[in-house]
Amino acid sequence: MIYNEKMYELGSKRSAIRELFEYGKQRVAIVGAENVYDFSLGNPTVPAPDCVDETIRQLTEELDCIKLHGYTSAQGDVETRAAIADFLNQTHGTHFEANDLYITMGAAASLSIAFHALTTSNEDEYIAIAPFFPEYKIFVEVTGASLKVVPADTKDFQIDFIELEKMINAHTKGVIINSPNNPSGTVYSRETIEKLAALLNKKEAEYGHPIFIIADEPYREIVYDGVEVPFVTKYYANTLVCYSYSKSLSLPGERIGYILVPQEAYESKALYAAVAGAGRSLGYVCAPSMMQKVITLCQGQTGDVELYKKNRDLLYEGLTKIGYECFKPQGAFYMFVKALEDDAERFCERAKQQDLLIVAGDGFGCPGYVRISYCVDEEMIKRSFTAFERLYQNYNKGEDL
Amino acid sequence: MIYNEKMYELGSKRSAIRELFEYGKQRVAIVGAENVYDFSLGNPTVPAPDCVDETIRQLTEELDCIKLHGYTSAQGDVETRAAIADFLNQTHGTHFEANDLYITMGAAASLSIAFHALTTSNEDEYIAIAPFFPEYKIFVEVTGASLKVVPADTKDFQIDFIELEKMINAHTKGVIINSPNNPSGTVYSRETIEKLAALLNKKEAEYGHPIFIIADEPYREIVYDGVEVPFVTKYYANTLVCYSYSKSLSLPGERIGYILVPQEAYESKALYAAVAGAGRSLGYVCAPSMMQKVITLCQGQTGDVELYKKNRDLLYEGLTKIGYECFKPQGAFYMFVKALEDDAERFCERAKQQDLLIVAGDGFGCPGYVRISYCVDEEMIKRSFTAFERLYQNYNKGEDL
Repeated sequence: MIYNEKMYELGSKRSAIRELFEYGKQRVAIVGAENVYDFSLGNPTVPAPDCVDETIRQLTEELDCIKLHGYTSAQGDVETRAAIADFLNQTHGTHFEANDLYITMGAAASLSIAFHALTTSNEDEYIAIAPFFPEYKIFVEVTGASLKVVPADTKDFQIDFIELEKMINAHTKGVIINSPNNPSGTVYSRETIEKLAALLNKKEAEYGHPIFIIADEPYREIVYDGVEVPFVTKYYANTLVCYSYSKSLSLPGERIGYILVPQEAYESKALYAAVAGAGRSLGYVCAPSMMQKVITLCQGQTGDVELYKKNRDLLYEGLTKIGYECFKPQGAFYMFVKALEDDAERFCERAKQQDLLIVAGDGFGCPGYVRISYCVDEEMIKRSFTAFERLYQNYNKGEDL
Repeated sequence: MIYNEKMYELGSKRSAIRELFEYGKQRVAIVGAENVYDFSLGNPTVPAPDCVDETIRQLTEELDCIKLHGYTSAQGDVETRAAIADFLNQTHGTHFEANDLYITMGAAASLSIAFHALTTSNEDEYIAIAPFFPEYKIFVEVTGASLKVVPADTKDFQIDFIELEKMINAHTKGVIINSPNNPSGTVYSRETIEKLAALLNKKEAEYGHPIFIIADEPYREIVYDGVEVPFVTKYYANTLVCYSYSKSLSLPGERIGYILVPQEAYESKALYAAVAGAGRSLGYVCAPSMMQKVITLCQGQTGDVELYKKNRDLLYEGLTKIGYECFKPQGAFYMFVKALEDDAERFCERAKQQDLLIVAGDGFGCPGYVRISYCVDEEMIKRSFTAFERLYQNYNKGEDL
């Protein structure tokens, strides 16, 4: 092929989730919006907090447009970085400084930059914990490294440490964690993080080089019932935190987030430089300038998480009442549900016949489960229960479609 | 080194231009702003046209914030792509469609994505024409390919076709052009583009594979005296246009631009898919959503180019009157001036002693010249002439510093 084949494949293969979403739009045209139950996408439905649009209007009125829309330094405005450091320090009792932060175009950019900064050889390996966001594999492989996956611990979707330990070897560069988790909705407990830190410390000593935790945290603020999301750098020095404001401020299209390089990380100054170099080499000149100013002024704000909680409770109660086996989400806005047959993809096909659009766990490295996104209209959840009920009855009647 | 060494170097080596800019700030503190003449940076100084901030305010007032700040499709909103295609077709008599456009985070992202899409082997080569934007080398090399440079044709800064032809071989994947040019201010004539097309057509036939023109065009609208900027796809099918709104709309910090993949390009659908895949693999989820809507509504608008022209004329007349040999810019906002000694870096050091901050052409692949950015305050240009005069007299007096 005359073009890069890997890039061609990535660009021509539509994701299964996107396919399902497009299918839903077609069904809406045929059977009406009220009869299609689209639980496929992870697009925030809680509005951005008012401060976002208010700050934008204020900035366009009060700030010189050259300052507002001009280049910032590559690592981001120092005011923005200082505001984030202050907020983190107040919230977590940490001691970060502006220079520990590198502002990015969201979590995908943060991850991509992090892997480019860390990878030094095609033999390098990263480890993800199933269920996991499938783009990790893409971001890792484009650097030449490879991704291994620890199978899900379906008991509570924490980490199967026995399997993880088996996978770590001299080539292990980092372990990617995502808590609150897409798609399971789990939050890693303090115990889990402590065990992970202890294991990695042991392995670092054994192999004589740092092994990083890459903490992908776009859902940090989307948690329920006061569950604690441990701040990983407090438990493990060699941590890169990849954050995004997409979910907390409901602005996923604006592409703004950061990488936190804690000073306690191994040769942190060199690591920060490698992060900056990776951003530069990938064409990330600076993160969007006005959005940098918006997040500076909206630190600590979030959309109304109670709305997601309401949906979670509604969906969890409705589905368990029917008889589905659901993992009760502690965070994010996805519910992970056991499929009614071993083949979750086949189960999703049968759900589709009830116009229930849900995503098989296979793509997330966790067969036998389905992901139900509940960042949707509450009324749609209510309407969907009869369809979920029919689907359940189909299986109990042993009907084959 | 435990981190990626190349990334580390890219991130820790501050660019010479940035160094100079920082030095300028220190000098301002010592001798006062009125006595420092900083011509180092290419930051637009003409305000964004009113439509930019007006559209932003209107969007935040009228559009639902989920729609305004939500994910767009990876290739960009179809309305945005259609608006760009319409504008190009009206302006250039072309026949582009929305699906020929892929919206990016500015020209650097466009270039980075383009090289990732095109490169298939470490033996691949790209060719730049000096003087050229030095980041090209970085964006090319991160894909594993290499960059060759055709020396400048200092007569008129068009293309030295004899040297270019010598450099093309079976590994040549593409030729990068940048017109209007940073740093020379030249605009490639229709004759130049026709000669380039003829040469590449011949070489494509000779080697039996496409050779692309990668047209980096952030300065397309910044031209003077009615000079024509030929639209390259009309002359050569295998062209990728990498555009940015940074300069035309004076919003370089917002990171918004596009890649145009014309249907007449070789297997254009596959190429478009490779572009989309490259964007995906580098972590570019979508271009900033609100800015996509802003450019949709501001097609055809630009900042006031007359202000740059006024600066160009002022600087050109002032410097030629003193005795400097200047290339009169036809576009962009840089003037390329012959250094008063062979070693342009040494010349810049001597300029620095007059608090004149100008950039040696060496970094742009063109020794013996200096770049003077005239996107600056008009008054600073006026004040600078006595310093330029002193610098000139120093050389004529044969003073050695």
